[in-house]
Amino acid sequence: MATTKSKPRNAFYAQSGGVTAVINASAAGVIETARKHKNRIGRVYAGRNGIIGALTEDLIDTSKESAAAIAALKHTPAGAFGSCRYKLKSFEESRAQYERLIEVFRAHDIGYFFYNGGNDSADTCLKVSQISEKLGYPVVAVHVPKTVDNDLAITDNCPGFGSVAKYVATSMREAAFDVASMAKTSTRLFVMEVMGRHAGWITAAVGLADDANTPIPLLLLFPEVRYDEAKFMAAVDAKVKAFGYCCIGVSEGLLAADGKLMSDSGVRDAFGHAQLGGVGPMIAQRVKDTLGLKYHWAVADYLQRAARHLASKTDLDQSYAVGKAAVELALAGHNAVMPAIRRVSDKPYRWTIDIAPLSKVANAEKMLPRDFITADGYGITAKARRYLAPLVKGEAPPPFKDGLPRYVRLRNAPVPRKLATPFDV
Amino acid sequence: MATTKSKPRNAFYAQSGGVTAVINASAAGVIETARKHKNRIGRVYAGRNGIIGALTEDLIDTSKESAAAIAALKHTPAGAFGSCRYKLKSFEESRAQYERLIEVFRAHDIGYFFYNGGNDSADTCLKVSQISEKLGYPVVAVHVPKTVDNDLAITDNCPGFGSVAKYVATSMREAAFDVASMAKTSTRLFVMEVMGRHAGWITAAVGLADDANTPIPLLLLFPEVRYDEAKFMAAVDAKVKAFGYCCIGVSEGLLAADGKLMSDSGVRDAFGHAQLGGVGPMIAQRVKDTLGLKYHWAVADYLQRAARHLASKTDLDQSYAVGKAAVELALAGHNAVMPAIRRVSDKPYRWTIDIAPLSKVANAEKMLPRDFITADGYGITAKARRYLAPLVKGEAPPPFKDGLPRYVRLRNAPVPRKLATPFDV
Repeated sequence: MATTKSKPRNAFYAQSGGVTAVINASAAGVIETARKHKNRIGRVYAGRNGIIGALTEDLIDTSKESAAAIAALKHTPAGAFGSCRYKLKSFEESRAQYERLIEVFRAHDIGYFFYNGGNDSADTCLKVSQISEKLGYPVVAVHVPKTVDNDLAITDNCPGFGSVAKYVATSMREAAFDVASMAKTSTRLFVMEVMGRHAGWITAAVGLADDANTPIPLLLLFPEVRYDEAKFMAAVDAKVKAFGYCCIGVSEGLLAADGKLMSDSGVRDAFGHAQLGGVGPMIAQRVKDTLGLKYHWAVADYLQRAARHLASKTDLDQSYAVGKAAVELALAGHNAVMPAIRRVSDKPYRWTIDIAPLSKVANAEKMLPRDFITADGYGITAKARRYLAPLVKGEAPPPFKDGLPRYVRLRNAPVPRKLATPFDV
Repeated sequence: MATTKSKPRNAFYAQSGGVTAVINASAAGVIETARKHKNRIGRVYAGRNGIIGALTEDLIDTSKESAAAIAALKHTPAGAFGSCRYKLKSFEESRAQYERLIEVFRAHDIGYFFYNGGNDSADTCLKVSQISEKLGYPVVAVHVPKTVDNDLAITDNCPGFGSVAKYVATSMREAAFDVASMAKTSTRLFVMEVMGRHAGWITAAVGLADDANTPIPLLLLFPEVRYDEAKFMAAVDAKVKAFGYCCIGVSEGLLAADGKLMSDSGVRDAFGHAQLGGVGPMIAQRVKDTLGLKYHWAVADYLQRAARHLASKTDLDQSYAVGKAAVELALAGHNAVMPAIRRVSDKPYRWTIDIAPLSKVANAEKMLPRDFITADGYGITAKARRYLAPLVKGEAPPPFKDGLPRYVRLRNAPVPRKLATPFDV
């Protein structure tokens, strides 16, 4: 049976890259909005484990999920359909992959492609958007922004970041109260390592822990500022002399003076073992060796990006909004675009959704502006605070049952396969 | 002016050892209850940095704090007056310390001694309770239980533990959702290291992340179960084969087959305990070396015990209740006791406060019962779940301002010194 223009076509949605506390809210935005347009969009098929699900024809029929289950995605962290780290190469390098995508899309009458991810995913989405033109299969591709790293171009901020920002600022504030209690006879140094390998957005967010209402002796080690041990030790020493203790937020991507990752610099960790991936313990040990301070350190790792229990309401709303907008943009005929958040005003915080061309988003990386970092390199400026403050605002706790968050797991019913041919990824 | 029986005497309150998310609720319980009995208790003086504040005559006049500030302690983590790791030795070894305490108590007419801590503090409190009899100064000493380790004798559970339990179970559940999303192409192993030096109560609480509603492939490494690498690797391998990923909760106090700590930083605290940390990354690396799984690991460290934003309502209520009961017990003439939580029923959970003699609490350590651990050594039994479940129940979030928890800092006004002599601690 041939597909006609008037007949609704199906949509493909997939999650890509590192997941977040609120990426499923974007999924809910896509699916709930598509369900409101049944005359245009038939079913939403999700890729099991991202684009791999498309390549292997491993599709999930989201129409089998109840409205309540889809709504529950708004309070459930991580990727409900599975994500992947898998980047499509160029048409020239990997023509077989694109032809396979078309084969699967054609078999399941997929006319809309929604890809929820970061920089790499924007690039994949851009390539898929060109399938129509280059390979003659009609599909509209819209990217749904997501990354805790907050490093996507054009959009004022990235869905997923605000919740991590809220988590790291809250955690540092809480830990600082703890260290302050212990400093007289015990711990005087607390180091928390945070994510953000190339851009210091999450490191900057740690800075929110320290504000006029709740001052904390806090130093930040940004990936943008090369580590200068003598200067840093002097800064720690000054904080300890003034306040009795010191807290440090350090990016996993901190660079040594020679530009190499501190965590790859061959220095042994706090326990004399070969590097296990922690610049946090390394910094703690160095301060102890130099200043003799007893330390504690934390590496929250996945806890920071999965902490749906402490999500930012602003972030949640925006995550849902970009999912919804993606469907609306596709229905309006936009191809190769991404809904981008535009800040209308700082205070009161107001935002709206713009249309960003994917060609300007793909593979670009938005770095932390230098004027967000104080002159000494260890703090955030008033400008940074103005930018960050609204992103962590508002609470949106999940439902709790028996004292623990109750998160949804979808049925994830497979769409019956139509192709006889397997495909290796 | 001599003190008469009818004249109100002052109280001393101090926080000791590692702090918790809810120890300040006990402080609020003590102070608010004392304020209701002004005919019997004059002022509550808090020790700045625990017992050190008493020895150095560094006292805080809590009567200078507003009712609102004291009430705000209920939603503020860590030790509002400062804590310390400092253990009084025996009368025979340190007679000068006890004489100094009496000197300070006499100077400030302190007739009540409330000490908020764990095992070591219970011992200190017991010794102070004997001052009347052994050194002739009239003082009533009541211990207020507190420890995230949940290892105090007599009491069914320890204030502070329920909130850590809620934090680690929530965090593991959230991280498990994250790993499940990533497992197809990336991370398949997640290791979270938790506190609990000798007793595996916190490790057991991680087990709550996995329940009938939300099954998670989870293995626990208890301090009570010697690490058996071959057996453990087989267990991880089985989980990964069945579920595609595996989560591990490991105690900082995990012991190797030879009974030595798997990871010992070599640093010891004032009590002579080893400062731990780092077994999480070690286990992750071993699994990678053996099974080749990509891993992530987290060490929440202070984050777990300071996380007031995720406190258990049950824990909060009990923390307040033991503070209140301590004052009531002292007023009823009980000396050398501790208010202990007695479980009346599991379901519905009901509890009451009993009176425990300090001689039975001091220096005892309540270990995790062996029948709380499954036969294979890697999980918790139904009996453990029945015990743990009510302790994490209920939410009691702090007020948020601008997206972050708003915690109180007290004025902590000093009580004017009356003694000319300094005292070195």
